[in-house]
Order: sequence, then structure tokens, then C-alpha cells
Amino acid sequence: MDIGIIGLGRMGANIARRLMREGHKCVVLDRNQDAVKDVEKAGATPAKDAADMLQKLSSPRAVWLMLPAGKITETVLTEVAGLMREGDILIDGGNSFYKDDIRRAKALRPKGIHYVDVGTSGGVWGLERGYCLMIGGDQAIVTHLDPIFACLAPGIGKIERTPGRDRRDPRAEHGYIHCGPAGSGHFVKMIHNGIEYGLMQAYAEGFDILRNKSSSDLPEDERFTLDMADIAEVWRRGSVVSSWLLDLCAIALTRDGDLKSFTGSVSDSGEGRWTVEAAIEEAVPADVLSTALYTRFRSRRDHTFAEKLLSAMRFEFGGHVEPKK
Amino acid sequence: MDIGIIGLGRMGANIARRLMREGHKCVVLDRNQDAVKDVEKAGATPAKDAADMLQKLSSPRAVWLMLPAGKITETVLTEVAGLMREGDILIDGGNSFYKDDIRRAKALRPKGIHYVDVGTSGGVWGLERGYCLMIGGDQAIVTHLDPIFACLAPGIGKIERTPGRDRRDPRAEHGYIHCGPAGSGHFVKMIHNGIEYGLMQAYAEGFDILRNKSSSDLPEDERFTLDMADIAEVWRRGSVVSSWLLDLCAIALTRDGDLKSFTGSVSDSGEGRWTVEAAIEEAVPADVLSTALYTRFRSRRDHTFAEKLLSAMRFEFGGHVEPKK
Amino acid sequence: MDIGIIGLGRMGANIARRLMREGHKCVVLDRNQDAVKDVEKAGATPAKDAADMLQKLSSPRAVWLMLPAGKITETVLTEVAGLMREGDILIDGGNSFYKDDIRRAKALRPKGIHYVDVGTSGGVWGLERGYCLMIGGDQAIVTHLDPIFACLAPGIGKIERTPGRDRRDPRAEHGYIHCGPAGSGHFVKMIHNGIEYGLMQAYAEGFDILRNKSSSDLPEDERFTLDMADIAEVWRRGSVVSSWLLDLCAIALTRDGDLKSFTGSVSDSGEGRWTVEAAIEEAVPADVLSTALYTRFRSRRDHTFAEKLLSAMRFEFGGHVEPKK
Amino acid sequence: MDIGIIGLGRMGANIARRLMREGHKCVVLDRNQDAVKDVEKAGATPAKDAADMLQKLSSPRAVWLMLPAGKITETVLTEVAGLMREGDILIDGGNSFYKDDIRRAKALRPKGIHYVDVGTSGGVWGLERGYCLMIGGDQAIVTHLDPIFACLAPGIGKIERTPGRDRRDPRAEHGYIHCGPAGSGHFVKMIHNGIEYGLMQAYAEGFDILRNKSSSDLPEDERFTLDMADIAEVWRRGSVVSSWLLDLCAIALTRDGDLKSFTGSVSDSGEGRWTVEAAIEEAVPADVLSTALYTRFRSRRDHTFAEKLLSAMRFEFGGHVEPKK
Repeated sequence: MDIGIIGLGRMGANIARRLMREGHKCVVLDRNQDAVKDVEKAGATPAKDAADMLQKLSSPRAVWLMLPAGKITETVLTEVAGLMREGDILIDGGNSFYKDDIRRAKALRPKGIHYVDVGTSGGVWGLERGYCLMIGGDQAIVTHLDPIFACLAPGIGKIERTPGRDRRDPRAEHGYIHCGPAGSGHFVKMIHNGIEYGLMQAYAEGFDILRNKSSSDLPEDERFTLDMADIAEVWRRGSVVSSWLLDLCAIALTRDGDLKSFTGSVSDSGEGRWTVEAAIEEAVPADVLSTALYTRFRSRRDHTFAEKLLSAMRFEFGGHVEPKK
Repeated sequence: MDIGIIGLGRMGANIARRLMREGHKCVVLDRNQDAVKDVEKAGATPAKDAADMLQKLSSPRAVWLMLPAGKITETVLTEVAGLMREGDILIDGGNSFYKDDIRRAKALRPKGIHYVDVGTSGGVWGLERGYCLMIGGDQAIVTHLDPIFACLAPGIGKIERTPGRDRRDPRAEHGYIHCGPAGSGHFVKMIHNGIEYGLMQAYAEGFDILRNKSSSDLPEDERFTLDMADIAEVWRRGSVVSSWLLDLCAIALTRDGDLKSFTGSVSDSGEGRWTVEAAIEEAVPADVLSTALYTRFRSRRDHTFAEKLLSAMRFEFGGHVEPKK
Repeated sequence: MDIGIIGLGRMGANIARRLMREGHKCVVLDRNQDAVKDVEKAGATPAKDAADMLQKLSSPRAVWLMLPAGKITETVLTEVAGLMREGDILIDGGNSFYKDDIRRAKALRPKGIHYVDVGTSGGVWGLERGYCLMIGGDQAIVTHLDPIFACLAPGIGKIERTPGRDRRDPRAEHGYIHCGPAGSGHFVKMIHNGIEYGLMQAYAEGFDILRNKSSSDLPEDERFTLDMADIAEVWRRGSVVSSWLLDLCAIALTRDGDLKSFTGSVSDSGEGRWTVEAAIEEAVPADVLSTALYTRFRSRRDHTFAEKLLSAMRFEFGGHVEPKK
Repeated sequence: MDIGIIGLGRMGANIARRLMREGHKCVVLDRNQDAVKDVEKAGATPAKDAADMLQKLSSPRAVWLMLPAGKITETVLTEVAGLMREGDILIDGGNSFYKDDIRRAKALRPKGIHYVDVGTSGGVWGLERGYCLMIGGDQAIVTHLDPIFACLAPGIGKIERTPGRDRRDPRAEHGYIHCGPAGSGHFVKMIHNGIEYGLMQAYAEGFDILRNKSSSDLPEDERFTLDMADIAEVWRRGSVVSSWLLDLCAIALTRDGDLKSFTGSVSDSGEGRWTVEAAIEEAVPADVLSTALYTRFRSRRDHTFAEKLLSAMRFEFGGHVEPKK
């Protein structure tokens, strides 16, 4: 198939590469001309602008947006949609908020333009390993795009099969699923990222306790100086906490058990926040997912106003002065 | 009555003062001679050492320890107990761990020495307002000491009565209770402090959200610059969040709405930690009390190892670099 | 002054009563004719409908809506605003979402209709004690309505003054404040309720640990059977955890220490949820306020799907079967 | 080598089997004679009692205890140690508390008996996949036992190597490590289980939000009916949340997406609790690991006293009655 790709950042460029390796034709667009040239070398056709891209694609034209979430996606999406005609397909592969997908799909429906949202996981590893795809949109369109999805997904690989999968949709085993109507792909991806926050925080807290077991505040015969890298490594084999995230911990801790190159200031992106909001809308308790998010908020501040107020109350009540850190 | 008081820190000295105001006789001891002299001026009889103190008291001798929790209490207590005779009374008014009380009471019982633990709340305000007392020990001994407790407690004051109290132990309304056997006084005080952590954290988070409502990260028409002091003040009247801790917030925020004199590095004492451990022993969920404790741990660090590991995982998976604070 | 009041539930009816006691004239409206008649007996003028109410008020007409948050407020507000003329004042005293206030004020401004939002705390106690008011809106209008606010607020009462208040807005000490532009009143009230959730949960967890200290799962010499009512009572005097909420605990526990008349299924209203969302928008950690909310979610379910999945994972990994409760 | 194994539950019996498959000789003991017979069929030598077991082993005798944590381990350990002579080796492979290990090793040292603690992860899968082993004890003894550990561990398998492991202890890659002195093996295993709780809870909350996205409480166009099994499956491929625990979710959800065979009453074992206590001793924030534990506590109750008190406060303040579930 041929497909347009707008946005050639780390994810977009690699998606184009993976598609072209298997013979798909990619027409590409990015404000950054260096990014365009890189992908052109790998076989992509550059477009001057959205109109040019659409002209270079066969009907129905399918355009995959791979842009940072937020305003830029909305702007480009509006522009491209304005140039599309009935039957064309707009795919948002970024990390958009699923309610935006629902709204967009609804707005485009009267014009006959199909909207597909694709939650895409894979990071810098996706080019080689493939991308896990969570897709929302109309059945017929998702089926039409199957060659694209099948190519991007990791495939069944060497991973052990889950008993009972024979009677079920084979796409899941190949690493992509059709979740439901527009918005559902990004919704599932959003929860995926929320879970990721929680998993990361569980490992982070555990290794923190392991590391501080050598603290001189503890009784001398209860101190251990533990090897973070070896512990991460051994858990990769036969232990129930083995995971891809643990593999990444092992890589980082083997390189430097003190993680000296990191300050510990941790970003968060929309998905973690939206996950908590979704939990609240559904009245589902989400303590772990929330606290994992808050840890990131806290990591980016020297001190919170909350902490100052705690100190102030302690001072007013008991005359307590603050300890030096 | 006469009573010995060992430990003339902020709490101990004021306890002596409040007792002497109402005619009780205090024999006092402290390593710090200035502290002794201060209380002597208020009428106390200084003792050279524990033996001297016991000689200066009438039988059965009652000695109140008001020392920082931990080793020092244990050391002094062992020394004084060694000098006591059958019928004497040892009172620990500090913040000891209740399991230590249980152990001590058991050890002293064969010698006929009575052990009483008194959880004491009141801070720097206690001298004037009185102390809230939570008492553990044998019925007869607690009754014997009633004049001391009644004097230290705030009394019924101007606080509105709770309907139905007529049929109940009148001591609670006067600000002191006999909780149960040895250890139960400190247990109730421990939970009291655990709750205090939770209450403080609730206010702290709320004011933090109020304050950050002026953040330039928010949409312009959703920003408010709110007056922390006025808000604390207004909630003191007619609002369901009114409390003593809120009064203290109002005092601190009226003095300086930015709390510039505080860094936000917050100590914790044993009671907060023991409360969580008690919850775990009983399999009672204690999310708020625990997270309030953890906030204090976090406040005393620049960054945790946990946060560095989060950054490391993000880097390994997605090539993400850390934001600048 | 005269004022229209729409919505004569528990809060609205008592607000009318408190205003009329001090000589204000109330024109009232409610679908429930019994509620209308009750307030009529106390001196209110009933209105047939919104148009009738406006006719019975002097210019500029001020109408206070005291309706359950959500659709009904929006509907009535739209209707009344449609009947108003330049200079009239619409007051929303319910628990509306502050972003709705911002939107409404903006929409009404071109028509010259003033919008004021009033966060109102006081519960069933407000008629006697007065209401704590958090007000958002234009300066001039808030000043114009001052007689209403001053009458509803508790006044300075017998509560000890905060040092340094002399140099500040005296309204806070009387129990009402002008927080800022439209929306800010409900925003402050929202955080107030968020804090309330956290405070309540702190007490709840603490008393849960106290009560379960008699559990037969604990070692025999570490069990205490504690008197919940006496503990709540004693903490009301001289203890740093004293508060209005604790007074309410004391009332409830004195009536029945086992709280047998409650099942433990706990509602939550919008403010607790919106508080968490506000924290997330500001990137402020709000662990206590969030977990207090989640506890309520959990309390309304027999079991969560989350718990079933935990059991399923335990079964698949270790062959563990579930314990009987 | 030959080794004695006391305790032939699921784990102990399979450990014996895996050792015998590779030619090690096992002398076994269990109160349950059926368990003994089963392992005898696989080649084990049954012992009548501990003394008999020791006689059937060559010197230095090594005995592996695989008993439920707690009193039974302590009892059997004391008995066996009483029968051992200098140079013999006692191995505790169960889930003992690491402070018990420290105490035991210290007590046995004067008698020349070596104590080794082995944290063992592998569940019902260990016989085929091998066990992840975290070992504490003296260097020389751990080296002496290496054939046993190497045989039980999974080995390097098909798992991708972590860059930089060449310069490090090769045992970690084979699935076993020597963590440090006695107690350190169980300490690392304890944290491992603590992390496991956190990971499990993250998945559990995420799937709960996914499932409740079909709730009729949500706006109709924001509802999705999602396929739990397909989502678990797709995340196993190319997604950063892939893990062994996710594999187990996929197995369970493929069998029954509603998990109807589970009530959701979830046990916890000592390690989760001890992990929180260790965090507190080190003053390390452990929000996720704690809340994961509390969720299990809550899952085993119909309602908590905390929830009843929340309802009681709501009733006293606002006259609110409880909703029906």
C-alpha cells in the first residue's frame, strides 16, 4: 500500500522505515528538512506540503499523523482534513486524548472522511522489534489498513503462546488489535501508559529500599551493601517480576549502579494524567497509578508549598525547627 | 500530692509549672542545670540525682519521666526502677513505643513497682491550655494519681458538650482518660499522632493546590491569585474543616503567606512510623496515614534513587532525557 | 435588602430563614410546594415562577440559586438569565464546578448581568452557626451584596483571634471572603471539600486501627479493647487533632461506639473529584486527597475487578486459592 | 552432591525433583506421607526423622528447609540444628523474615554450623523453568553449594543478554546470586515480593479502568466495551508493559474475561508487610508498595470501621444518608 506520514520524529521516521522495508510506499512530510532527507535516503517520497502529499497518494488516500500530542496535531489534522475528499482516511498515531478522537471522528463523518486512532508503543526499539498497536475506528477501514498494521506490529515472534488463543482474533498475537470505535485505540494506549507508570514506580521503590539498606542509620548488623545490577539481572530469570522494564533497569544499572548520570527529575506526559481522570470518571480506585504520577510531579520540585506548611504547623504547635537535610 | 519529674525540656518544665500552680509539690532533675534553675524559681525542689529525688518524695513515690523517646528513657527508667521499692510508681510521659511499655510493666510487676504510661499532647500551648492525657496502667494506680492528671488536663472549659456524655466516664470531658492496661496510653497517643500527620497533610495538599492556581502553566482565564491567610482565616468560622491545626495554619500564613522562613524539610518522629506498623499488624488499610509519612521522608531528600531509576528507564526505553527543573 | 432564592432544600431554606431573621426580604421558588409553604411561614414571599420572582424584587434584582450541582442549575440559570436585564445579579450558591462559573460569567457579561459564585459551607448547622462563604465575582457587586453575606456568615463569635489580623480584610474574621473573579469562590470551596475528604479519612483510618487493636489475630498481651467514644471526647480537649469533624465523631461514637446503623457505603460529590483534577492540572502531588476519594469509590463496591485480577494472577503463578473472608 | 530436604509442599517437592533430574541425591522428610511417596517415586530417599536424614547424608551435611514461614520453620530448624555438628549446613529456602536469619546465623556460628538463606522464586513453574535464587551466607559455603544452586536456577536460557555483563559475576545471568551475609538473600527476596505486589496492583487497576469503560454511568458516546483478553495479549508483543505477570493475566483473561471464578478476596504474605516496614526503617517513600498491600487488606473485608465512621461524619454534618450499593 501507499501511505502518507506527517511527522518524522523518532517514532514517525522509524515507522516509515519499517513500512518501506516490507515494500510499502511512504510519502513523507516534516518541517525539519534533515529529517525528511534521512527518510528519503531510505526510499521515501518527500512531499512539499499536505496538498502535494495527497496528490502523490492513490485513492482512498491514507495519511498517518505522528506528531506530539496537543495543538500541533489538531492544527495539522484540520488542515489535512480540509484537503481530503470522501473515502480518505486520517490516522492519528500520536498520543492524543481519546475524547479528541471521538470529537474529530464525529466532525469528519459527515464529510465521509474516516478517522482512525492508533496507540503505538515501541519506543526506540520499535524499528527492530515492531510496534504494539491499539487501534480505534470503523471495522471496514481498519480491515482496509490491515497490511500497514500487520507490517508495523512485531508478529508472533518467539513469545510463548497463551493457551486458548486459537479460538480468538489472531491479530492480538501478532501485536495489534482493533479495540473498538474511534477513540478506543488511544484509550487503551492511555491506560497502557498509566500501567507503565505504576510498574516503573514499583521497581523504583523496590530498588530504593535495596540501595538504602546500607544506610548508616540502620543497626550495624542489619545493613547490607547490595549489588543493584546483579539483582536486576537475576530477577530476569525465573522470577515473577521479570519484564521488559526490568530488562531496561538491568541495562541501566549494569552501566552504572549509582545512576550518576541522572538527577531524578522525571517528566510525565498526558496519558498518566488522563488515566487518573478516567479512573475518577468511572469511580474506580486507582491508588497506584495516581501515586506514581504524583511522584513524578514531586520529583520536579525542590520543595512543595505543602511541605513548607507542614513545617510551619510543626513550628506553631510544638516549636519544632526544621532539620538540616 | 508530691511527684518527681525527670526531664525538664519544653514539655517537662511546663508540666512541673502547671502542677505547682495548683499546689502540687515537684522534685525535679535534669542534666541541664539552667533548666533546673528555671523551674526552681517557679517553686520546684531540685534533686541531685535519682536517689536524692526518691528520698525527697513521700511514699508511695511517683516519678514522672519526660525524656525524648528511645535509649535515654530506657536508661533512666532502669536506673530509677533499681532504686524504687514495692508500691512506688514509675510514669513515662514521653513518646515511648507502647510495646516497650508492655515489656517494662511486665518486668517491674514482680518487684511491686507500678508502671503507668501517659501519652501527652499539648505542645508549647499546654502550660496555658492544659494537656490532653491518654493513660495506661492499673486501675488503682491511675485513680491514686488522679489529682495529678486532673490538674494537668485542660478541664471542661468552654467547649460545647457532646450529647449523651452524662452517662459516661467524666474524665474524658476534662481532657484525660484511662485507656486500659500499661501500653494502651501510648498506643492511643501514637494513633493520635498518626492522625495528626494525616490531617496536616490534607491541609498541606489543599493549600498547595490553592497556591499553584496562579501558575502560568494554566490557561490564563483559569488562574486565580488567592490569599492564603484569608482563606485559612475564613475556614475557621462556620466551616467543617475548622480545627486547631487550621488555627495554626492561619497564624503562620497571616505572618507570611509565602512561608519564606521554611525550607520544607519535615521531620517525623516514631509515632507516625509505629502507626503504620500497627495498621499492618492489624491488616487495616491506612493509605492516608502512610502517605503522610512518606511525604515527610521525601521532603528531606534532594532526590530519591527511585526517581533516578525512573529517569533511567525512560531513557532506555524511549531515549527521553530529563527535563531541567 | 431583598433577594430571590431558588431551591429550598436543606441549605436554601435555612439560608432564607437566616436572612429573614435579620430583616432581609426573601422571594422564594421551589418545585416542592411543601418546602415553599414552610419558608412562607417564616416570612418569605412565594413566587409563581422566575418571572414572577423578578417582578417582586427591587432593582438591581439579585437571585440566589441553591440547587444541586449539575444540569438543574444550568437549566434554571439559563432561564433566569434570559429574564434578567442589565445590572441584575445571578448568584450560584450551590456546589458548581468553577470552570462552569468562568464560562457563565463570560457569557453573561455582554448582557450586563453580573454573576457571583458563592461556595457555602455549614451543613445542617448553618442556620444557627452561620455559613462560611467563599465568594467569586466583581468587586463592586460583591460589595453591593455585603449585607447578605455579612448576615449569612457566622461573624467573629467567641473564636480566638489570629495574631496580625488587624491589618487585613476584616471580612475573613467574620466568616466570608471575596476570593477573586467569578469561579474563584467555588474553586476555594472545592479545595475546602477536598481537604475535608482528607481530614475525614485520617480520622477514619486512625479509629479503625484503634478499634482493631482488640483483634484476636494479635498476640494476646498486645490487644487492647479501647473506648472509641471516650477517645474521641478526650481529643477534643487540649489535643492538636481537635476539630469540628472530631466533634462530629464524638457525637456519633457516643451514640453508638460500633456505628451499627451505618453500612460503610460512602458517597462522594463532585468537589472531591474536581480537587484531584485541579491538582493534576497544576502538577501538585495530592496523594492524601486522592486516596481519600478512592476509599469512597471502593466502599461502594462488593469487590473490584482489580481484586479479581490479583487473585487470578496469584492462582496462575503460585496455584494459590482465595481465602474465605 | 547429596542434600536433605525437609518440607515437600509444592515448592519443596519440585526442588527435589529438579535436583534429582540432574543427578543430585535427595534425602527427604515431610509429615505428609503421600508427599514423601510421590517424591520417592522420583528417586528420593525417605528419612524417618531429622536424625535419620542426617545419618543418610555425607559430611558436611546440608539440609534445605522448605517450610511455610513462621513458627514451623523455627521449630524444625532448632531441632535439626540441635542434631548437627561442626561444619554442617542449614539452608532456609522458605520465606523467612531476614532478621530471623541474622539472629539464627549468629546463634549457630559458635557451634560451627553454617546458615544459608535462599530466597526462591518460581511458583508452580519452577520445576520446568528453574528457580530464581537470592542467596545469603558465607562466601565459602555458598561456593560449596554451587552445584545445587546452579542446578535449581533457570540458566542463561534464550533470554537476551544485558550489555556489559561480561565483566560481572556470571551467576546472575544463570539465575542465582550471592547477595551478601546471612539474611541478605531473604531481604532481596522480600523486596522482590514487595515489587511484585506493586506490579500486580498496577495491572489490576489498569484493567479495572478498561473494564469499567463500558459503564452506563458514562456519557453514551464515551463508552467502550473492550476485550480484556485481547488487550492483555497484544501488550505481550512490542509493548513496554510486557512481563511475566502480564502473561499470567493473558492466560487468566483468555480463559474467562469476567474472572467469574474469583471473588476478589486477596491474601497477603509476610514479605509485602515486611517490605513496607523496611522502607519505613530506611525512611524511603514506598507509596506504591504500601497501597498495593492495603488493597489486599481491604479486599478481605465487607466494610471497614473507617468507612462507617466516614458515613457517620457525613450524617452528623450534612444529614446525608448512605447510598444503596
